[in-house]
Amino acid sequence: MADEKLPTRAEDFSEWYNQLVLKAQLADYAPVRGCMIVRPYGWALWENIQQALDRRFKATGHQNVAFPLLIPKSFIEKEKHHVEGFSPELAVVTIGGGEELAEPLIVRPTSETIIGHMWSKWIQSYRDLPVLMNQWNSVVRWELRTKLFLRTLEFYWQEGHTAHATREEAVEETKQMLDVYTDFAMNDAAVPVIPGAKSDAEKFAGADTTYSLEAMMGDCKALQFCTSHFLGQNFAQAFEVKYLDQGGVLQHCWTTSWGLSTRVIGGIIMVHGDDQGLVLPPKLAPTQVVIVPIFKNDEEKAVVLKTAKELKQRLIQANLRVTLDEREGFSPGWKFNDWEMRGVPVRVELGPKDVAKQAAMLARRDRPGKEGKASASLADLPATIEKLLAEIQQALFDRALAFRRSHTRETQTYDDFKKAVENGFAFAAWCGNADCEEKIKEETRATMRCIPLDPAAVLGNGGTPSSGTCVYCSKPSKNRAIFARAY
Amino acid sequence: MADEKLPTRAEDFSEWYNQLVLKAQLADYAPVRGCMIVRPYGWALWENIQQALDRRFKATGHQNVAFPLLIPKSFIEKEKHHVEGFSPELAVVTIGGGEELAEPLIVRPTSETIIGHMWSKWIQSYRDLPVLMNQWNSVVRWELRTKLFLRTLEFYWQEGHTAHATREEAVEETKQMLDVYTDFAMNDAAVPVIPGAKSDAEKFAGADTTYSLEAMMGDCKALQFCTSHFLGQNFAQAFEVKYLDQGGVLQHCWTTSWGLSTRVIGGIIMVHGDDQGLVLPPKLAPTQVVIVPIFKNDEEKAVVLKTAKELKQRLIQANLRVTLDEREGFSPGWKFNDWEMRGVPVRVELGPKDVAKQAAMLARRDRPGKEGKASASLADLPATIEKLLAEIQQALFDRALAFRRSHTRETQTYDDFKKAVENGFAFAAWCGNADCEEKIKEETRATMRCIPLDPAAVLGNGGTPSSGTCVYCSKPSKNRAIFARAY
Repeated sequence: MADEKLPTRAEDFSEWYNQLVLKAQLADYAPVRGCMIVRPYGWALWENIQQALDRRFKATGHQNVAFPLLIPKSFIEKEKHHVEGFSPELAVVTIGGGEELAEPLIVRPTSETIIGHMWSKWIQSYRDLPVLMNQWNSVVRWELRTKLFLRTLEFYWQEGHTAHATREEAVEETKQMLDVYTDFAMNDAAVPVIPGAKSDAEKFAGADTTYSLEAMMGDCKALQFCTSHFLGQNFAQAFEVKYLDQGGVLQHCWTTSWGLSTRVIGGIIMVHGDDQGLVLPPKLAPTQVVIVPIFKNDEEKAVVLKTAKELKQRLIQANLRVTLDEREGFSPGWKFNDWEMRGVPVRVELGPKDVAKQAAMLARRDRPGKEGKASASLADLPATIEKLLAEIQQALFDRALAFRRSHTRETQTYDDFKKAVENGFAFAAWCGNADCEEKIKEETRATMRCIPLDPAAVLGNGGTPSSGTCVYCSKPSKNRAIFARAY
Repeated sequence: MADEKLPTRAEDFSEWYNQLVLKAQLADYAPVRGCMIVRPYGWALWENIQQALDRRFKATGHQNVAFPLLIPKSFIEKEKHHVEGFSPELAVVTIGGGEELAEPLIVRPTSETIIGHMWSKWIQSYRDLPVLMNQWNSVVRWELRTKLFLRTLEFYWQEGHTAHATREEAVEETKQMLDVYTDFAMNDAAVPVIPGAKSDAEKFAGADTTYSLEAMMGDCKALQFCTSHFLGQNFAQAFEVKYLDQGGVLQHCWTTSWGLSTRVIGGIIMVHGDDQGLVLPPKLAPTQVVIVPIFKNDEEKAVVLKTAKELKQRLIQANLRVTLDEREGFSPGWKFNDWEMRGVPVRVELGPKDVAKQAAMLARRDRPGKEGKASASLADLPATIEKLLAEIQQALFDRALAFRRSHTRETQTYDDFKKAVENGFAFAAWCGNADCEEKIKEETRATMRCIPLDPAAVLGNGGTPSSGTCVYCSKPSKNRAIFARAY
């Protein structure tokens, strides 16, 4: 567990990440190449993420459903961009119940096709619209280069799917869900994200427009946090999803889809983690407070554990997620390291002297060492800790935002641009041409992450002009885009 | 939706069930043979079932995890009974990323094998035990005769998996989880179940002992509600799951597994449903109370909707799950039928006269027609409805228990036995011999459901002798078993 130290982030960020995921017992490698096992601690984190999102989905009128895992192979071929995008990544079931199947089945890589097929049965009239659905499941995409949480053959996610009577409504839904994700990212995950539109080269296979949230990791690379797609009438046409409008005319629906996956766990690790291990935002942490009792003999043990148990109950009553570490055979110091590796936001150290003073030592995970420690009175401890957790939540966000801004540069020249993407985001005018985008990628390994919806928020400098000349070809450019090397 | 009537249960129970599932919009047929789509109303019911169980699993110390969907085919072959049981039912992925796979992968039919493989890595010493895990997912078994919820190619479930240092602990866990399921079935699903042990012929492929809960459906057939397996050291030996005991000796672990699936939704439908449709137990109903406003003109509408909305808020504040049916273009009568089809426990009818009297008409779903209707004061309505929901929950259980007992017969002779299983459960002495069991099945289509753990509770007649002579071969028999035709 925490017996061996991690490599530092400066030494080897990638290996720091890989070892952290294993040592914090978030996940492990499965026997099938590229698949992962999400262990109890990682799954508890995912459950908190699920609850935080599911609450928001339901509040915006969405209902959960379950569409099957297995999809006829022919379905994927009905939408021309979709088949191009997904065909190389499919897992195909060819044998069922001991017999070769007449039509092979694919393990879903995403569910637009099978949902489109069912909607064509269920949706008849404008009265049936909008249809607002979501499902929590796993999907399979045959990735070649995999990394736990960030890119695995099978991953866990939610996929929202909606159908609307008008283009405007569908566009509004696409943006609403991007806002829902932004609210979650900023307020719960403490990850300062940049909402924006993807380029045609980077958009979802079958979408008219893809929006995403982009975040900066601790090594200054970008991570796509989640996506929201306006699918136009592409899938509605491919699957004949039609409705009778109020004038009695048969119309194709306008559809959207949007998804967020276990990849965000990788994002949370790489945004907040430090050389001691994981640092979790309090709102999502499976354990928000760990109590570590300290004693030298049975007499001290009895006194300390009695107080520790009372304290635990009081913290539970204050709706905090608490663990009392009563494990035998481990020193307090070993336990401190172990819980630091696991990123628990607040540690309560409780020894006989603390009990005598009716106090406890609080240690903040986001400020390791003495700087983050302070003694607090037991009497007010639940309130003190609640306040501290809110402070930590805000501090994590502030630190990540400052880091991102300090590693994001507005670049006017291509030389400047090339330097910027060596170690951060470049924010630059771009003509919108796919050729420039492709050349930039070839020459710098930086991809177009998004055209920010709120350019002024990228650097927080109160608004910069949104037109100029393309950083690559110097042609006039209406938009400025974020470019970065990315996961 | 509710426009056409269901066949009655007496006319055609099977067709009543099929149409109810579709008309109540619980589920639909997927394009792949034998697969189902769980629609929003069905999934909301499953989410309530999940929460009711998950709470109990966590209270007994279990943690949720996620093991992958894809399992190397060779794994399934390591435990000899397991491979015999599951080989004919496998879905096999042979192509991934456009290439033929060196080793085919199976889509998990259950996860004992891959979990055993990982435990052999994670478990080292007695300190690591017990391991108490659960996962919520879907599994695939290539069934030939399918029926929505009851038997589908892919189904949703939870699978619990635990590893222990001793045989006693593992046996205790197996029984504890059967108790957890019993508590859920009796108190939340209002289904009176019979906990018992399966015969060798009916046990899980790879188990030493399988326990199950057996329930009687409205057509007097049995449904296996869920199972809990004591796996002995079978999987621990096949996958080398070992630990160093306190004396430093390497020992194989003792393991258990236990599962409950979306099949219980089929059970709830068939236990409680009536000729008008679904009847849901209040504790699990997605909507516990529906308010149907009644008005003839805009003036009445304004008055009634104002009161209806206030009432809705008061019911939500009382933690009730409420829907106010404001749909335009449907008559109150049509709405009554629609919500009856969906099994909502309590309907509140609110018209201008009710508002004038500061009252509302309450209709109980479990007692259709005038008998189940009563006017109640608006002032106390939340408390009145809470009380009514508790009454309905109990009444459903009582009715199902009385039905089961009235269709269960203690049989001494084989002639009597044959008559009993025509229309119910036979409770009979059985020698324990698989030959008798097989002959009974051939001759009567009744299978050995279980040897009840509490024989006295089957008929509630205060205890009957638990030995006698086998109903088939007349040899001395220590045990009495439930036999029935089953789903």
